[in-house]
Amino acid sequence: MTTQSLPLVITSGEPAGIGMDIILMLADRQQLNLPNRAVIVLADIKALQQRYSELKQKGAVKDGLMIQQLATHELKDLPQIVQPSAHDTILVVDVPTAQPVVAGQLNPHNARMVIAQLQLAHKLAISKQVAAIVTAPLQKSVIMTVLPDFMGHTEFFMQQSGLDKVVMMLANNLMKVALVTTHLPLRAVADAISHEEVAKTVDIVIHDCQQKFGLTHPKILVCGLNPHAGESGYLGREEIDIINPVLQHYRDQGVDISLAMPADTLFTQKHIATADAIIAMYHDQGLAPLKSHGFGETVNITLGLPYIRTSVDHGTALDLAGTGKASADSLYHAIDYANNMATAIAL
Amino acid sequence: MTTQSLPLVITSGEPAGIGMDIILMLADRQQLNLPNRAVIVLADIKALQQRYSELKQKGAVKDGLMIQQLATHELKDLPQIVQPSAHDTILVVDVPTAQPVVAGQLNPHNARMVIAQLQLAHKLAISKQVAAIVTAPLQKSVIMTVLPDFMGHTEFFMQQSGLDKVVMMLANNLMKVALVTTHLPLRAVADAISHEEVAKTVDIVIHDCQQKFGLTHPKILVCGLNPHAGESGYLGREEIDIINPVLQHYRDQGVDISLAMPADTLFTQKHIATADAIIAMYHDQGLAPLKSHGFGETVNITLGLPYIRTSVDHGTALDLAGTGKASADSLYHAIDYANNMATAIAL
Repeated sequence: MTTQSLPLVITSGEPAGIGMDIILMLADRQQLNLPNRAVIVLADIKALQQRYSELKQKGAVKDGLMIQQLATHELKDLPQIVQPSAHDTILVVDVPTAQPVVAGQLNPHNARMVIAQLQLAHKLAISKQVAAIVTAPLQKSVIMTVLPDFMGHTEFFMQQSGLDKVVMMLANNLMKVALVTTHLPLRAVADAISHEEVAKTVDIVIHDCQQKFGLTHPKILVCGLNPHAGESGYLGREEIDIINPVLQHYRDQGVDISLAMPADTLFTQKHIATADAIIAMYHDQGLAPLKSHGFGETVNITLGLPYIRTSVDHGTALDLAGTGKASADSLYHAIDYANNMATAIAL
Repeated sequence: MTTQSLPLVITSGEPAGIGMDIILMLADRQQLNLPNRAVIVLADIKALQQRYSELKQKGAVKDGLMIQQLATHELKDLPQIVQPSAHDTILVVDVPTAQPVVAGQLNPHNARMVIAQLQLAHKLAISKQVAAIVTAPLQKSVIMTVLPDFMGHTEFFMQQSGLDKVVMMLANNLMKVALVTTHLPLRAVADAISHEEVAKTVDIVIHDCQQKFGLTHPKILVCGLNPHAGESGYLGREEIDIINPVLQHYRDQGVDISLAMPADTLFTQKHIATADAIIAMYHDQGLAPLKSHGFGETVNITLGLPYIRTSVDHGTALDLAGTGKASADSLYHAIDYANNMATAIAL
C-alpha cells in the first residue's frame, strides 16, 4: 500500500452520546493510526476538546493527544495532503454545533449539526475524496425534530445517492449476513418477500461482494422464509413460488448461490465456513445467530451505495457519554472492516 | 446413586434407518453403560443382530458385543431385575418386524413395528417402569401409510398421555430453547401468538424446569415476536398487547421471567449464561442461534409430558444405514441429557 490511499472519514454522530468518547479512546490507543491511510473525524472541535478533558479527568485516556483541525479548503486535495496521521494526532474537520454540548443531554438545537456531518461525509465519499464512511451512532428522535421523515443513516445515504434500495449487511469474524427485509413487524414479513425484493437483494449482494470485497466469484447461501425452508411446501410455499425461482435464475447464469436452505441449520460451522455471504429473509432470522457469536464485534455495512459505509452496532448510550465507560470495540471493528474493504479494492 | 435407579429406554425407530446402527456404535464404545442405571433397547432382535454383523464387516464396531433379550414378563419388575448392564451387553426387548429388515430400504409392512415401540415405551414410562424415553428417528411418511394422521413422536406421546399441548425444547451445552410455535409457515406465526399459547408454554416450561430439571426457581428469558421486540410498538404490537401482559402476570407472582427481549441480542453470551431456559416465539428465531453453536450436540426434549423424553436431532439417514458412517453423537447426548434429568430428580 502506498500513502496515496484515500483517507477514511468517521462521523462522530450525536454529540451528547458516546461517539466522540469512543473516537478519543481509539486515538488514545493509537487505533486510529492505520498503516496505509489517514482517518478524518467530523466533529465540533470545541466539544471534542471538552470531551477529551472529561475523559482525561476520569483517567480513561492519557494526556498528550493532539486534536488538529483540517481547514475546509484542504478537503478537496485531501488524498494529497493527508499522510497517515502522527501517532498522537486526531485530524478533525470542524462541524460546529449551534449550542454548547453537554455529555448525556440531548439538545434539538444541535440536530442539524448531525445532519451536516452526514451531508459532508456523503459529499466526500461520492466525490472520491475519501475511501469510506464509518458512522458513530446518532439519536433518531432528535433528528426527527428538524427532519420528521428522517429514518436513519442508511436511508439518508440511500436518498442522497438517489437510490431506492440498499441492503443492510452485518458482519463479524465468522460470517456476513445480508437481509432482504429489515425493520418490519413479523406479520408483515411474508408479504414483503417478492420476486423483486429478493432479486434486488441478490443483485446488490453479488455486485458489492465483487466491487467492495474484491470477491470475483462469491459463494452465497440463502435462507428460506419458512421453517425447514418450507419442507417441500408443507410449511409454506414462498420458497417454491418466489425464492427458489429467483435463485435458480442466478444459478443458471453461473452464480455460486444456493437455493433456499433451512435457516436453523444454515448457520452451523460447516456451512458458514464455506460462504462469502449469507442472505436471510428477515431481521431476527439472520441477526440472532450472527450476534450470538460475539455482540460488540459486529459491523453494520450498507451494500448498494456508491461507496463503502460501515457503522457501529450500538446506540448513543447517553448515560455513558463522558464517563470513560463506553466500549470502543465496535467502532474499532467498523473502521478495520472499512479499511480492509477499501484496501481489497485499492481505494 | 443406587442401582435402584429406574432404567432408561431407547426406541430404535425406523429399522431401515440408522437407529440400530447408532445404538450398536454406542454399545461398542461402552457409552450405553451408565454408572447408575440400565439402558433398555426396543428393537427387532434379529434385525439388530444382522445390523451388528454388517457393521462388524465394515470395521465400524468390534467383535464380542452380547445382544441379550429381556422377556416381556421381566418388564414389570425391571427396576429390581436389571442392574447396570455388563460392559459388552445390550439389553433388548424384542419388538418384531413383520418382514425382514434391509438397511436403507423402507418397508411399509414394518411401519406397525415402529408404532409398537412407541406404545411400549409410553406404557413403560407412564407406569414408572423406566425413568425416561430416548427416541431414535422414525420415517413419518412410512408410518402415515398405516396411520394417516400420524404427526410425529412428540404428538404421539402427547395424545397417548391425553394432553392437548406439549412444548418442544432444544438444548445443547450452552442453552435450552423452548418454542411457543413450532412447524408453522412464517406467515401464520403472528396470529398463532395468543395469550393462551404464550401462557400455556410458560406454564409448561416453569413446571418442567422444576419437575424435570430440579430447578426450584428457574430464570427464564423470553424473545419478542418482532425485531427489537417491537421497539415500543413501532415494529409491531404483539409484545405490548399479548406477550408482555402474560409475562407480567408471572412476574407479579414472583417468577423470574423477563419481559419480551429483542431476539437478536438475547442469544449473546451475557444473557444465555444467566438463563435456565429461553422461550422463543417461533422455530427459526430460537433454533438458528441454538444450532449455530454445535449441530449434532443438540438434544430435543419434549416438555409437558408426564415423563422425561429426549430425542436425537437428526433423521433416519437411510443412505448411511449399515455403512458404519452414521454419527452416534446426537444419540449419546440425548441419552446423557435424559440420564442427567432423571438423576437430578432421582428417578
